[in-house]
Amino acid sequence: MMRMTKPIIAITMGDPVGVGPEVIVKGLLDPSLHALCSPFVIGHLEWLSKAASLFAPSLSIRPIEAVSEARFEPGVLDLLPVSSTSCTGWRYGESNPYASQVAVDALHEAVRLAQAGAIDAMVTASINKEAMNKIRFAYPGHTEFLAERAGVKRFGMMMVGGDPKDKEPLKIVLATIHVALKDMIGMIRKELILEKIRLTHESLTSDFGLSFGRIAVAALNPHAGEGGLFGNEEAMEVQPAILAAQKEGIFVEGPYPADTLFYRLRQGQFDAVVALYHDQALIPIKLLGFGCAVNVTIGLPFIRTSVDHGTAYDIAGKGIAEPGSLVAAISLAARMASCRKKLSQ
Amino acid sequence: MMRMTKPIIAITMGDPVGVGPEVIVKGLLDPSLHALCSPFVIGHLEWLSKAASLFAPSLSIRPIEAVSEARFEPGVLDLLPVSSTSCTGWRYGESNPYASQVAVDALHEAVRLAQAGAIDAMVTASINKEAMNKIRFAYPGHTEFLAERAGVKRFGMMMVGGDPKDKEPLKIVLATIHVALKDMIGMIRKELILEKIRLTHESLTSDFGLSFGRIAVAALNPHAGEGGLFGNEEAMEVQPAILAAQKEGIFVEGPYPADTLFYRLRQGQFDAVVALYHDQALIPIKLLGFGCAVNVTIGLPFIRTSVDHGTAYDIAGKGIAEPGSLVAAISLAARMASCRKKLSQ
Repeated sequence: MMRMTKPIIAITMGDPVGVGPEVIVKGLLDPSLHALCSPFVIGHLEWLSKAASLFAPSLSIRPIEAVSEARFEPGVLDLLPVSSTSCTGWRYGESNPYASQVAVDALHEAVRLAQAGAIDAMVTASINKEAMNKIRFAYPGHTEFLAERAGVKRFGMMMVGGDPKDKEPLKIVLATIHVALKDMIGMIRKELILEKIRLTHESLTSDFGLSFGRIAVAALNPHAGEGGLFGNEEAMEVQPAILAAQKEGIFVEGPYPADTLFYRLRQGQFDAVVALYHDQALIPIKLLGFGCAVNVTIGLPFIRTSVDHGTAYDIAGKGIAEPGSLVAAISLAARMASCRKKLSQ
Repeated sequence: MMRMTKPIIAITMGDPVGVGPEVIVKGLLDPSLHALCSPFVIGHLEWLSKAASLFAPSLSIRPIEAVSEARFEPGVLDLLPVSSTSCTGWRYGESNPYASQVAVDALHEAVRLAQAGAIDAMVTASINKEAMNKIRFAYPGHTEFLAERAGVKRFGMMMVGGDPKDKEPLKIVLATIHVALKDMIGMIRKELILEKIRLTHESLTSDFGLSFGRIAVAALNPHAGEGGLFGNEEAMEVQPAILAAQKEGIFVEGPYPADTLFYRLRQGQFDAVVALYHDQALIPIKLLGFGCAVNVTIGLPFIRTSVDHGTAYDIAGKGIAEPGSLVAAISLAARMASCRKKLSQ
């Protein structure tokens, strides 16, 4: 079979009883997506068909047995089933082990397909950490599972988002993520920052075609410490990491005061920022583009993007979930995959 | 003499050899200002006249001996001189003690006029900390000087800004300002947060006419600590401060995750946010409205607003300084003064 030029993207259904199925069927109605890529879903046939009839009645679900059978037709969503468990009795917002197992099986299948070269990218809908723990999925989240399956030790989180009207979304890599602010400060070490700069550089090169992508690193302290007056982490840890990366030929600058850096990023002075902590990165992303940010795992051998929201059990099944983040995650995966395909030609 | 209904606003010239004179003469050409208020400048006659001829040739400077002599005519800027020192030899970007003294004298005069009820607000152009220290002006900045002269111990900084196209600017009060991030964490105490909530409430009431202004307090840790998983400052310090303020009848909520809070503020869910540290407050303000933010000192008996930039010696005298922040500071002072006048009627 001749390989299609549009990238093939697998969407994992996520936790069936969360908002995943709803945002998938709503999102896949978006006509712009089929112009960019060939998307299909990995998940549970009966449950996704029910979700379509509830939330996107004009969409039909078509089961396939292999990616090669997918037709990628707008209005007809191809689904690769990973489970034939009955979904009788499943209820939105109430986790159950059979539903959670579908989420795990879909992930395993997506990794298998990615490693076999059958897909160009995967987009993951949300899973529920607590529900996953109950069935002994012993990972803090998707990212660590995918990294282990891919056999990589170096990986990172890049948030891509901002004002949808801007020409180019903000790209912000997080040096630290879910830790208390006081513990975060001790983690700001030269080695960590250098690794995140390298990962950012690699992603700009391979995923965005920017081999001389300009990277800036945010400072930790107000006014970047004002020459040591308000903290010395800039001089002791961040600056040495930047110098080391520059010696490797990476176009990186900083540390720059965080209060003006994201304005400068938005103005196009840089292609990406390495932010030092969660809120430093997420305040600008969510302020400008609430609900349409994409979480990208960088450092994996395959492309993986994700919605930036959770399973939202409180609104699951109510028909009010917005598919914006999923649509953005699919579009971005398509863009990144097209870039990698172009570079490998 | 009958008191005019438009608020009378004194603009202190700031450091003469910084960008203050330039932004003042450029800013006062803005025709919208005279519709809102009656502005005049306190400073150095010859130097400001030279600045006008250099940077705003259509503006004339008219000396007055008292506020009562001011005519507040567009195109003619009234100036109350505080010094007759010769300015021969002064150069932009090079501090000198005589010029610095003019900045100090203008501040003293502004306080005297405010305390005498001759002005409704003061707007301060920037001073240079290093230059001021050389003439033994022993304050970290304007704010501490004004608080001491006014005899107040409780005061705070509110940043007002954001996207100029928004209906209402963001109002963000900073619980801590120029300290290292690691020292900041130890300063997040119930008493401090409670004081900042009270000051915010008082300012919303008297300066913005919002006696039931809705205040939200930002969290310190990602996801507001996720129930203690990533830090406990929310439960130990911030939450008790909020409860105490609620008992006093203040409409305040939180602590809310900082990554979505500024989006919610912009959507109008709150009237003001108490942010816990410098960059948490300044990232949203500068991202949305670079160069047009206003620094307001709350807790003083008189209204004081300020530009959000420094003396910028590197560009002083070059004609490239933007007056946006000064114009915004004057407009905001006019709005706040009109509100206080209305409430006192």
